[in-house]
Amino acid sequence: MTPAPHVVIVGGGFAGLTAARALRKERVRVTIVDRRNHHLFQPLLYQVATAALNPGDIAYPIRAVVRHQHNTRTILARVDGVDVAKRRLVLDQGSLDYDYLILATGATHSYFGNDGWERWAPGLKTVEDALEIRRRVLSAFEAAERATDRAQLPAMLTFVVVGAGPTGVELAGALSEIGRLTVARDFRNFDPRTLRVVLVEAADRVLPPFAPKLSASARRQLERLGVEVRTSARVTRIDHDGVWLGEEHLAARTVLWAAGVAASPLGKALGAPLDRAGRVLVEPDLSIPGHPEVFVVGDLMHIEARGKPVPGVAPAAIQSGRCAARNIAACARGRPTRPFRYVDKGSLATIGRAKGVGEIAGLSFTGFFAWWVWWLVHIAYLIGFRNRIVVMLNWAWQYFAFSRGARLITGRAWEPARAAAATGGTPAGPPPTAAKV
Amino acid sequence: MTPAPHVVIVGGGFAGLTAARALRKERVRVTIVDRRNHHLFQPLLYQVATAALNPGDIAYPIRAVVRHQHNTRTILARVDGVDVAKRRLVLDQGSLDYDYLILATGATHSYFGNDGWERWAPGLKTVEDALEIRRRVLSAFEAAERATDRAQLPAMLTFVVVGAGPTGVELAGALSEIGRLTVARDFRNFDPRTLRVVLVEAADRVLPPFAPKLSASARRQLERLGVEVRTSARVTRIDHDGVWLGEEHLAARTVLWAAGVAASPLGKALGAPLDRAGRVLVEPDLSIPGHPEVFVVGDLMHIEARGKPVPGVAPAAIQSGRCAARNIAACARGRPTRPFRYVDKGSLATIGRAKGVGEIAGLSFTGFFAWWVWWLVHIAYLIGFRNRIVVMLNWAWQYFAFSRGARLITGRAWEPARAAAATGGTPAGPPPTAAKV
Repeated sequence: MTPAPHVVIVGGGFAGLTAARALRKERVRVTIVDRRNHHLFQPLLYQVATAALNPGDIAYPIRAVVRHQHNTRTILARVDGVDVAKRRLVLDQGSLDYDYLILATGATHSYFGNDGWERWAPGLKTVEDALEIRRRVLSAFEAAERATDRAQLPAMLTFVVVGAGPTGVELAGALSEIGRLTVARDFRNFDPRTLRVVLVEAADRVLPPFAPKLSASARRQLERLGVEVRTSARVTRIDHDGVWLGEEHLAARTVLWAAGVAASPLGKALGAPLDRAGRVLVEPDLSIPGHPEVFVVGDLMHIEARGKPVPGVAPAAIQSGRCAARNIAACARGRPTRPFRYVDKGSLATIGRAKGVGEIAGLSFTGFFAWWVWWLVHIAYLIGFRNRIVVMLNWAWQYFAFSRGARLITGRAWEPARAAAATGGTPAGPPPTAAKV
Repeated sequence: MTPAPHVVIVGGGFAGLTAARALRKERVRVTIVDRRNHHLFQPLLYQVATAALNPGDIAYPIRAVVRHQHNTRTILARVDGVDVAKRRLVLDQGSLDYDYLILATGATHSYFGNDGWERWAPGLKTVEDALEIRRRVLSAFEAAERATDRAQLPAMLTFVVVGAGPTGVELAGALSEIGRLTVARDFRNFDPRTLRVVLVEAADRVLPPFAPKLSASARRQLERLGVEVRTSARVTRIDHDGVWLGEEHLAARTVLWAAGVAASPLGKALGAPLDRAGRVLVEPDLSIPGHPEVFVVGDLMHIEARGKPVPGVAPAAIQSGRCAARNIAACARGRPTRPFRYVDKGSLATIGRAKGVGEIAGLSFTGFFAWWVWWLVHIAYLIGFRNRIVVMLNWAWQYFAFSRGARLITGRAWEPARAAAATGGTPAGPPPTAAKV
């Protein structure tokens, strides 16, 4: 009997893990390679950034997911290249040969060629990103509390979110609630309810992939939370002082980036054709032209369904991972592969504590019911029973107490009070008496 | 009416926060200064390091603790010096004048003059320390999974803990359980149960502050968990390859430091006499000689009770913080201060999932009962109702499922596989067939 073929899956996100799970009963050896040891439940990452959840609540060790899957092992490594001719991956240390490859390394945000903006406007893709955003947001309040020059307060208390896709909308809603509810009574030197959240979108409406009437509803819900929505507004510059929209300047200490799509650079290494964002143009069965043993899935693939590109959402990642796994199983048995059929499961976005918009199976809904459906769907998909319980508990707590349990500033805690440094002053006087400090 | 006196409390640990709470109804203005935004429940920090709890479970924003205390404000700042003559603190930015000062900046571990060891053997005092230790421990398993040279496995799977006080004993017990229970089935290339945990202590028994028979019981319980206990063993060198005990070499990739006490350097700035560890020798009322308006509390103070120094434990910190606050209130009213009376609440240490030792009010107990008392006491003291619930849930889960919910490697995830780099090999073959990769 020949040895079982070796399937290497690069990336432990939704697409990669689904593929691994789908191969669990096949006569193959599976190796999952990821440079992180955890699967990240990305749809809830903004909740870590906004201090509602702990990183451990939405991430789960990849090896624990496949613990009982005896044909599968996991290695923690960075993949630096692919040699499709030799069927070999180049790792940070050593190499790894495959018989079949599933590339599921996803995408990140794109700064549209302005990579210098990243320093001032971090994106949200990893646990570290989320903790950095949390640090900036909470540190902005701390700096405002220490500020002696009150003229600086408006910039300290202005948060700009660039990009009004689901992540941008969710971030903007949550930020506004932090100021208006969570920390409203925590500061003495300024009123956190004076927080200004501006959501900037280049398209003419928020949530561009949704139906126009849902976009309109989302905008109304955001505005009711106090978010300033700026559509048809293009960012031309971001720096230390804030954001420029053409001639207009938004003075802001905290800018968050939730726009654009840039596919993982590993796609390029395959030598297959790419789209503008760097996604790999795959064959109908998700393999790449000329290499029926290499499959690309999830946010890294470009494929069309009913004339439109399949969107970079979790259901598409899950479906494509499963399809690639089935096609590999078919190849291994000498059977023909089947084309990928994308089933659109609808879209959901949440806006703050109890608002949202959604469309599922042709039905659209808004407000509390949309939020509730969003909640059920996300809890249902969360990997790991324990994580489900902890997240439910955290949410319930947050919902009833307006509290955000994970309000830690870690890393460089006292550093960001740079505006106070500029004035060199002592912190302003404490209430109730505004006497000398 | 004169303005209310300004009390500045430096440090938001047990001592500082207790002092602030005790002043909430007094006619004073209170400012808490800390370089971190959170109070840390230090007795449970080893559980973050060993991946049982999330940082957010054991830390709570200082400003949320004093939210409803209207005479109190919090500022996030680093204190760089104290000018006792001018009654002024030098901050990282600006300065802060006080009428009364409570210094509660605590202590950290001491490397006894060998500060170069810290790189190889991190201590456990902050959330960042705990996450770094977690990263090293989990990364050691990941490196072992990738190792091609099996001769390196023993060093990769040897964890040395230096110092057998409560923290060292708790760390050693938890580490042994991680290998033997939590990740036992997660790896394919080695058996995590071959993990070796060595606990090194210079004194002739573990838990030196406890009664000898409890030390003996703790040792037996540790050994039953598979921990190698080395007493009367002095570390003479720590480097990349492990630990030297005189002529003997323990080859170990992961070394953790839980020995010695070095008081916060701020104590020196007061100009008061210090003990060998840098703790401030305080007057009976916890003020410093010549400065009745300056109080030193918690782990930074040196005071004797019944001929023995008061130990650096949470109950002593809480009691001293309350005493200093009462003495300030007395001074502000022109009344005499009272001496500090330390009430020994007993000692508790936990060893793994369901073992421990304790002595309370002259009674000593061991095993499951000690663990249970430890658990109740720590839950009762945890700040914040939500944190209590989440920690209880995490523990219950861990207890019944042998699972550690917070097993994330964050930061530099794939870096530590340095041993594999040295051999330059490809990862070894996957099960079930050990064929080519």
